[in-house]
Amino acid sequence: MEKYISSLQNPLIKEFALLQSKSRERKKNRLFTIEGHREITLAIKGNCRLKTVLFSSEIIAEEDLYVIKDLSNSETNFVEISTEIYDKLAYRNSTEGILAIAEAKQHTLDSFTFSSKKPLILVAEATEKPGNIGALLRTADAANLDGVIIADMKTDLYNPNIIRSSVGCVFTNNIATGSTTEIISFLKENNISIYCAELQASEMYYSQDYTQASAIVVGTEATGLSKEWLQHSTQNIIIPMQGEIDSMNVSVAAGILIFEAKRQRKFV
Amino acid sequence: MEKYISSLQNPLIKEFALLQSKSRERKKNRLFTIEGHREITLAIKGNCRLKTVLFSSEIIAEEDLYVIKDLSNSETNFVEISTEIYDKLAYRNSTEGILAIAEAKQHTLDSFTFSSKKPLILVAEATEKPGNIGALLRTADAANLDGVIIADMKTDLYNPNIIRSSVGCVFTNNIATGSTTEIISFLKENNISIYCAELQASEMYYSQDYTQASAIVVGTEATGLSKEWLQHSTQNIIIPMQGEIDSMNVSVAAGILIFEAKRQRKFV
Repeated sequence: MEKYISSLQNPLIKEFALLQSKSRERKKNRLFTIEGHREITLAIKGNCRLKTVLFSSEIIAEEDLYVIKDLSNSETNFVEISTEIYDKLAYRNSTEGILAIAEAKQHTLDSFTFSSKKPLILVAEATEKPGNIGALLRTADAANLDGVIIADMKTDLYNPNIIRSSVGCVFTNNIATGSTTEIISFLKENNISIYCAELQASEMYYSQDYTQASAIVVGTEATGLSKEWLQHSTQNIIIPMQGEIDSMNVSVAAGILIFEAKRQRKFV
Repeated sequence: MEKYISSLQNPLIKEFALLQSKSRERKKNRLFTIEGHREITLAIKGNCRLKTVLFSSEIIAEEDLYVIKDLSNSETNFVEISTEIYDKLAYRNSTEGILAIAEAKQHTLDSFTFSSKKPLILVAEATEKPGNIGALLRTADAANLDGVIIADMKTDLYNPNIIRSSVGCVFTNNIATGSTTEIISFLKENNISIYCAELQASEMYYSQDYTQASAIVVGTEATGLSKEWLQHSTQNIIIPMQGEIDSMNVSVAAGILIFEAKRQRKFV
């Protein structure tokens, strides 16, 4: 493989651009793209295997490249690209001259495990906006949740906007995806209580005990949770809304619920 | 004044476009623009005076226009515009065929009052992104806070992106703006305790008592709060971060702090 690329027609550059823009390509090849020094570092820490690292030596700080070379395994190809190519490929202006192609992980419920016997889990159903999924993953990382499960996902987890808006927390969290039906079975089999956030619920969120194995389930801002969740809920819970409007940003609502559970658990 | 406009060269259309795009024009004329049925309805409820309402009769539902005519005062001019003009002026695709020019309110600390003797207030310093200010205002509305104060604001409150991302909560909240110095004086004069959210603080946010007059103060994600706030703080408080990253979305952090205070106050 060439070690310096300055042509947009190079097959590797074309591969990167396709993986970056097409969910279908990512799924078919089980590969995805990452942009930025922090994101790539967190991906390595999260045991992502990097296939290729593309860097512009004019932009990246030498020590930053050194750190990434040091962390990644011997099978990773490091390829220098011209600054022009970098500028074409990078979505953000402020990134640090480094991009990568990485191998997608499986996120099936079959292999979803926890170290805690009383896990605290966030479930998000059908969240439409990549930015909202990213924000949920940031909050889940901050709370060091035992896991995040995404139900009936509309995109793939390696959508560049999810990676970006999660500031790399798509790599630091323990994540599974599945259908609502599969996830409800999984939670019931594992004796995890299901707390569904719902605007019409009768129980206040702070009146419930989240110190046992618990899943906090949030839906979309527009339509809330599907009937299936509400039917299989251990308890539907409400955040009281005392103003003029009747909806809250889903990541703010999830933050309030998760940190109430963490408070009850004394942040252990 | 004409009652039907189909030309982009019409002075009223030009005025609307200028007010919509230029903060300077909004400040100079003490006027601003609003888009959407919900937003305009909330503005009227929040005692905003509408100068002009522009509507496309092909798009707006007759009963929606009727409700707005009924709510607004007799000095409001209702002007029909062509659908082409509407499409040019509207930022969003999904709005309901209605736009308005409204009179800006003053948001000075001089006239900032509360009905509660033990108010709960949110202060946000130097929040850069209109979307973050909008999200904070949504959360403040949901919690029915006694007030929101924005310190060292980088834009004007009637930035169309703030109105949009607040889903109209810029009209439902009791809001003041000012410099950090002015706001600290105001809070001290009114015996309101200052709780500054700070990553290096030693006291856990949930260990403090927010049942007396309290201001919760949040800064930017990138740099946190200025030294001035930390020096004049009653108590700096921390949300424990237990994951790999060390920052949280500012509206999520504010939501966690505000709703802990509300929980302690039993949502009264």
